[in-house]
Amino acid sequence: MTTIREIRLKSRPVGLPTADNFELASVELPAPGPGEVQVRNTWMTVDPYMRGRMNDVKSYTPPFALGKAMEGGAIGEVVASNDPSLKVGDLVQSMFGWREGFTAPASSVTKLETHGLPPQAFLGVAGMPGLTAYAGLLRIAALKPGDVVFVSGGAGAVGSMVCQIAKLKGHKVIASAGGAEKVAFLKELGVDEAIDYKAEADLTAALQRAAPEGVDVYFENVGGDHLEAAITVANPFARFALCGMISQYNATTPPVGPRNIILAVGKSLRLEGFIVSNHWDMMSDFAKDLAGWHAAGKLKWKETVKEGIERAPEAFLGLFAGENFGKMLVKL
Amino acid sequence: MTTIREIRLKSRPVGLPTADNFELASVELPAPGPGEVQVRNTWMTVDPYMRGRMNDVKSYTPPFALGKAMEGGAIGEVVASNDPSLKVGDLVQSMFGWREGFTAPASSVTKLETHGLPPQAFLGVAGMPGLTAYAGLLRIAALKPGDVVFVSGGAGAVGSMVCQIAKLKGHKVIASAGGAEKVAFLKELGVDEAIDYKAEADLTAALQRAAPEGVDVYFENVGGDHLEAAITVANPFARFALCGMISQYNATTPPVGPRNIILAVGKSLRLEGFIVSNHWDMMSDFAKDLAGWHAAGKLKWKETVKEGIERAPEAFLGLFAGENFGKMLVKL
Repeated sequence: MTTIREIRLKSRPVGLPTADNFELASVELPAPGPGEVQVRNTWMTVDPYMRGRMNDVKSYTPPFALGKAMEGGAIGEVVASNDPSLKVGDLVQSMFGWREGFTAPASSVTKLETHGLPPQAFLGVAGMPGLTAYAGLLRIAALKPGDVVFVSGGAGAVGSMVCQIAKLKGHKVIASAGGAEKVAFLKELGVDEAIDYKAEADLTAALQRAAPEGVDVYFENVGGDHLEAAITVANPFARFALCGMISQYNATTPPVGPRNIILAVGKSLRLEGFIVSNHWDMMSDFAKDLAGWHAAGKLKWKETVKEGIERAPEAFLGLFAGENFGKMLVKL
Repeated sequence: MTTIREIRLKSRPVGLPTADNFELASVELPAPGPGEVQVRNTWMTVDPYMRGRMNDVKSYTPPFALGKAMEGGAIGEVVASNDPSLKVGDLVQSMFGWREGFTAPASSVTKLETHGLPPQAFLGVAGMPGLTAYAGLLRIAALKPGDVVFVSGGAGAVGSMVCQIAKLKGHKVIASAGGAEKVAFLKELGVDEAIDYKAEADLTAALQRAAPEGVDVYFENVGGDHLEAAITVANPFARFALCGMISQYNATTPPVGPRNIILAVGKSLRLEGFIVSNHWDMMSDFAKDLAGWHAAGKLKWKETVKEGIERAPEAFLGLFAGENFGKMLVKL
């Protein structure tokens, strides 16, 4: 028997979650039965979408159960195997995050080939956030030559990949982020115009200055003022990929909707929401492009790392305080 | 010389237009020069989109000029011709509405073949409003078998065609309109569920009762509460054709935007605005389908008619008071 620690959802948050909504517990892992493996997790991810699963409402993923370990992406190492497909020492990716280890069917994990990338990159730039950026830009927003691209939350895990993919494809890119340090990071990423939304009283005016020619593609991570600004500055036939609206995840009263939505009629705008799990079919194209960009030394990414399972709730809460540069991760 | 009367924009409305924003004037028409025709208008249309052209702002059509006759669809009869392509007595369609007649190049009017329909139908069911319904449903909303369709303003010129096209294609149709008489008209059109929005305190609850299986296509003519209700009741991957938002055309302060827009992310909704002038390429398909439906006796339409050019402003203002059943027209 092996003892591991895990983070459970203790109570459902109302508004912004607090540390009290989570609890640390110890459990004994059984030895792997036939067809099973035991894995020691080395990395886990915290992502904004997990906030939705903490509510007890029907959504595209079922809610987390109270009193049980939460779920999420994780990278780990096989420490015992009772299945021929995996051997001790193999790296695997799974959805058994928020815990130091687990025993599970070998079929519920995926063997990880890192192709020269650090393993935790597969929770960020090379994983779900990277594919989210890729699918949102190329499929949902249908990026085409000459488009001017605006992305909110440009210094985050998804946003920073949006900036880079659009730049690699030759576009003018405008990105927003909160604070001087993040704006400096946006410039490192090569964006043409960086907007510090915390320093702007009028985001629409700031976007108009940054994109006097108008915006053709908007990649939405933030919502609220950002969405209104993008609608106002959008060119006719602009496409909006609605990936997330982090400014609204903890709202306890209905937020203000885009008051200028009527402009979508006259400008023939298209606003389309998406979730990455409907676009796994693009993974092989993405992986190929990513490998090429990485081999050419053209990709940059940042990680904000907290160490220890006990700090996973703190890492998650940090997402809503804008503490992360690039991908927020927990090293186990 | 012939004297005709025309309606000019006297001042730009702020909020809801009033009769004072318009003036009736008499002008002398010159005899047609080489290549020109003189036309006596018999019908003109008033449409909600014209409200936008009364503002002095850049939009998809230029603003009406102060002190000049406004423009809009009209049907008329050639009374003098100095061009071989048209002869006296020919019916023509033009954008020289809001006036009893005009002299203009023959190339600026289109000879009208009525194919058994009354001429004024080409300002409604067989004209721009009909094509708007057709393009919005089939191209923008990408109607597909099994879709449940919701249309707001279902008793209007565009909405009543949306109801009928969707029913002819075999769909469940839910339509909203204001008042018992319009609801009775919706039932004549064959819709499955008719919502009297004036009688409902909670439009979302009413839509949920009418469409317990959810809505796959929403055809938006109204905005405001209607858009929020449609977002809440939408099924995953629902498509919204944003045709107009009449509840907002006269707003003098920013209206409330859809406070639940975040649901568009998790449900992968697509909201797309459009204007019919980008979809003229569908006109021949539409005309063919329309002729077939009409020949089979399957089309119903209503007209609300005011007589005399001096009543054109009253007809236009009536659109915002919901006075029209089906197409609002002025007989000249």
